[in-house]
This record gives sequence, C-alpha cells and structure tokens, in this order.
Amino acid sequence: MEHVAIAGAGSWGTALAVACRRAGRRVTLWGRDAGQMAALAGKRENPRYLPGIALDPEILISADPDALTEADACLLVVPAQVLRATLGQLAPRLKPSLPLVLCAKGIEQQSGLLMTEVAAACLPDNPLAVLSGPTFAAEVARGLPTAVTLASTDANLARTLAQAIGGRSFRPYVSDDPLGAEIGGAVKNVLAIACGIVAGRRLGDNAGAALITRGLAEMTRLCLARGGKAETMMGLAGLGDLTLSCTARQSRNFSLGLALGEGQDLDAALKASRGVVEGRFSAAAVLAMAEGLGIELPICQAVDQVVNQGTDLAATIDRLLARPFKAEGFSA
Amino acid sequence: MEHVAIAGAGSWGTALAVACRRAGRRVTLWGRDAGQMAALAGKRENPRYLPGIALDPEILISADPDALTEADACLLVVPAQVLRATLGQLAPRLKPSLPLVLCAKGIEQQSGLLMTEVAAACLPDNPLAVLSGPTFAAEVARGLPTAVTLASTDANLARTLAQAIGGRSFRPYVSDDPLGAEIGGAVKNVLAIACGIVAGRRLGDNAGAALITRGLAEMTRLCLARGGKAETMMGLAGLGDLTLSCTARQSRNFSLGLALGEGQDLDAALKASRGVVEGRFSAAAVLAMAEGLGIELPICQAVDQVVNQGTDLAATIDRLLARPFKAEGFSA
Repeated sequence: MEHVAIAGAGSWGTALAVACRRAGRRVTLWGRDAGQMAALAGKRENPRYLPGIALDPEILISADPDALTEADACLLVVPAQVLRATLGQLAPRLKPSLPLVLCAKGIEQQSGLLMTEVAAACLPDNPLAVLSGPTFAAEVARGLPTAVTLASTDANLARTLAQAIGGRSFRPYVSDDPLGAEIGGAVKNVLAIACGIVAGRRLGDNAGAALITRGLAEMTRLCLARGGKAETMMGLAGLGDLTLSCTARQSRNFSLGLALGEGQDLDAALKASRGVVEGRFSAAAVLAMAEGLGIELPICQAVDQVVNQGTDLAATIDRLLARPFKAEGFSA
Repeated sequence: MEHVAIAGAGSWGTALAVACRRAGRRVTLWGRDAGQMAALAGKRENPRYLPGIALDPEILISADPDALTEADACLLVVPAQVLRATLGQLAPRLKPSLPLVLCAKGIEQQSGLLMTEVAAACLPDNPLAVLSGPTFAAEVARGLPTAVTLASTDANLARTLAQAIGGRSFRPYVSDDPLGAEIGGAVKNVLAIACGIVAGRRLGDNAGAALITRGLAEMTRLCLARGGKAETMMGLAGLGDLTLSCTARQSRNFSLGLALGEGQDLDAALKASRGVVEGRFSAAAVLAMAEGLGIELPICQAVDQVVNQGTDLAATIDRLLARPFKAEGFSA
C-alpha cells in the first residue's frame, strides 16, 4: 500500500496527510473547495485549520476528484453530516476495490446511520475500515505520540493499513470491530457534555471519574446491543477517546456542558458555542437507537433531556442520583 | 446491619465514618493513638487529616479495640504496610463472624500479598469484602457525589454492606470480584507515575489518553491472569480510580512522575516528595507478580525501570514507542 489519498482538508484530514507522509507514503490531500486547495498548495500550510504545520512538498494537494483514482486506500475525513454528499460526488471516480477508511465521528442526523452504514449505502462494494481514537489533530501533526484504533472486519486490510500509515509516533492498533469503534466515537460526545455539567456545577473529581466509568458502561451496553465488542470500548476508540473528551476541556461538547452547569440557560449557552455541538445531536440519535434496541442509557438520556428538551438541570441530576444501588457492570 | 466500625482515623477512615453516619448507621471510629483520638473526640474534627469537616456528636471515637467488638461490620482503613500489625492487635477482639471490609489500596511489600490475602492470613474465618474506587476523602466527607465498588465473593454480604453504608451522595455498586478491585487499586498508582512522566515531558493529551487506555489493558491482563474479571477493570475500582489518579494531579505518584518528566533526577524527585510514593513500591511488586504469572506489562515495567532501577527516561520511552504494532486488547 504505497499511495494513500485523504478526502477532506480540515484539521484532522490535514494532520493525517502529514502523518501518512511521515510514514513514507505517497500522499494525495483532496478538498472540494478549489480556491482553498490552491491556497494550501501555494503556502504549503493550512493556516485556517492547522496553523504552523508545514506540508511536505511531496504531498499532492488537489480539488480534482480524479486525483484520488490511483490511490491504494482513501481516508474519508469529512464531517458526519456531509459524508453522503461527498461520497455522491466521489463515487464515479472511486474504483470498487479501493479501501475506504472512515475517520470522522458521528451519526447522520436524518437517517440515524453510522458512518460505515452511510458509506455502504453509497458504495456497496468498497472494503471499509474505521480509524478512531484520542486524537487532537495538532498533536498528531506535530509528531507527538498518538495511538488509534484501526478497525475492519477484514483483518488483513486492517493490518495492511496499520503498516502503511503507522510510524514511531502515530501508532495504530488493529481491531476487527469497526461498529464498536463507531459507537464509541458517537457516544463520547454526549458524555463529554455530561462531564462538562459536572465540572460546571463543581460536583468534584470523584463525580467526574464515576461519570466517565458509568458512561463507559452505557457505551458498552449500546455497543453490545448492536453486536459490537466490550473489548473495543476498553480500547482507544472507546475509553481512550472518552477520557480525552471528558478531561482535556477543549471540546465544544464539554464547553456547552460547563456553561449549563454554571447556570447559563440553554439558549444562551448554545449561542455562545462557536459552532455545531455534535454531542447535542448525537444525544437524540443515540437515545433513538437505544429505544429501538430496548436498552436504558440513563446518563445519555439525562443529557438529551437537558440539551434537547429543556428539562431542569438540578432535577435531572437529582433523578440520576436517586436511582437504586445496582450491581456494577454494563448489563444493569 | 446497624453498627459500623471504622479502624483507622486518617483522612479516608474519617471520611468513611462521616459517610456511614450520614447513611444513618451507628458509627465507631477507632485509631491506635489514644492522644490523637482524645483530641478528635474533644474537637469533633480531624484537623490534621480532614480539616473543616465536623464529626457528628453521635460518632463514637475511641482508641480502645474493645469499642469494635459489638459492630456488625468493620471497615479496615489503615495503610497497606501496617495492616498486618493492626490486625495482629485487633484479632483477639474481633469475633470470627464479623465482616471485614478492606478499604486501603496497595500490596504488602515484604510478602507481595494483596490486602484480602493479608487479612485472610491473620483472620482466616472472617467474611471479607473490598471497598475501592475514585474517592478523594475530602469530597466524600463534604457529601459530593461519589461512586465506589463494594466487592465480595459473598453476594449477600456485598448487598447488605451497600445498603448499610450507601446514601444519596455515596453510592456503592456491588461486585463479586474483590480480587479484581484490589488489582486495580494497586496498579493504578504505578500508571499514575507514568501519566505524570508524560505530562512532565509535554507529550500531549493524545499520549496521556493512550497511556490510560493501554495501562488499563495491562491492569486487565494482570487481573485476568490472577483469576479476576475484565468487567471489574472497566468499573469504578479499575478505570474509575485510574482516571482520577491520572488526571486529577493531586497524588504523590503523579507528582513524582511529573518531576521526573520535567528532568529532575530520581534522588531529587524522591526527596521533594512529601512522603511514601506508594506506586514506586507497587511497581516492583506488580512486576514480580507479572513475572510469576508469565505475562508482560510494558508500561509498568518501564515505570519500574525508571523509579527503581535508575534507567534513563528518554531511552525507556523510546523503547516503548518502538514496540511493533499489535492488535488492540489485553491479551497482547
């Protein structure tokens, strides 16, 4: 696997291009906006999304979908809500044998589908893999140590991809559970809102650690109900990403929760956010998924009530704390 | 279960006495130092270990082991290295039917035994349970929400204890895996040193989250090899306590790692610590346990090399990062 294409030139796509080039691959970085891509190619930098990181001259930068046709694998790094449109645009150019690696986290709002499900609907023949884990793009671009889950039902594909894009500082661990990796990436944004609320209300570090733990139990319950593996939830795409989102405090999800916990009302807190708060929409989608499967996710449900239904925060927390003592684990 | 005794009047023992009293129990708080206990009884406060927390007048404070005899359960909250001596002193006073709840974390240095193993050696007939989890004592004493694992091979005992000492803000989750809970409490101190090193060397948040995740995999490997359960490691006594120790930055273990990561040499960093760094001794004990079981714990081993064998930090990190890419999970 010599040539890796990256579709999507935001901060994460650009950082992955840098990492793949560092691993010695021939790299094509594609974005749909011709003007932006021309600027990137001219400056050899992505000042809007990844300032201060030089792009190796050997990275081919293009807005032409034909630039992707010769790659041995294509990393899809566009936001969840535009994946379908992007694949619609790219589909005629991508050969059915080209492996596609889903690198964005989230659930498609209108359909409730995971990223691999959207990809399979658009391109039913291409082999699929998922890349997920605790990854601030700027740290990956700077070459700081980062470990990710690289998951595919095709074990050989996962191994080949790991060897192709991995290096000393960017370390993929292979997995055969792409579905679990996707569940982790979707649910962690909901739980990050909850952790923000706990911090905003100054409920303490014990409560934050308990929330991460019980949140992981909910994530695992949903994962198992969908046919994924508990082991994936204990890994980088589950626990790893959850820990990062709930403690590093840079995410919009955590910030929204923090503002609510400090007493701001929902409208004001949403207005103060700098963009889409992914976890808010994921909360509704995750709850719908859980209801369809007949399982309870009390923390995710509490977040959904607070951020989507305007339920009173203090009363919601009281209800959570009033639940009876149960056995530990993810089946309860 | 009406009357709960607490043996050990440090910060955690005192906080547990407050929590048990808040749950409506009759409470006896025992400490070996008659002068200190008389001072506590006079002031109704433990200014050295838990300043600012009023002790309910109904809590009986005593240095007389006979005060423990009538309790329905005894929480043992003395440090790992003095448990054996304390049990030796108390043994003649404790009836063999009295349930003992081990609340301290660690491994006995001279023997390599876990706390339940020390207790079983000293008092072979008493029923045993383990209480563990993410618990800053001051937060428990203040009534901030806290969840813990309460584990016993006797499911009925675990449930009865949970009902007796649990309340709205102090929430025990029952488990049947005391051994797993003890492994978590011992290994997390070793991993907290590693997390401190990563922070001190400014390796980034991705690296910290990956370390927690791969550290949990090591903890789980050891737990399974000893006959414990993976589910316990995903719970409050595993992941929950690990997250707290690796992110809240108040522990001596994390601080030692931080100093080493920032470039201090080992002797200077140890001198600057305010007391015993439990994780340093646990590192050696955990490694000995792993060697006996024939399993590899690369992160714990790296910590042991750095804090007990004076190995160069940079070279040790390089070796960790140079390991081949593997499948995710705890069997590798």
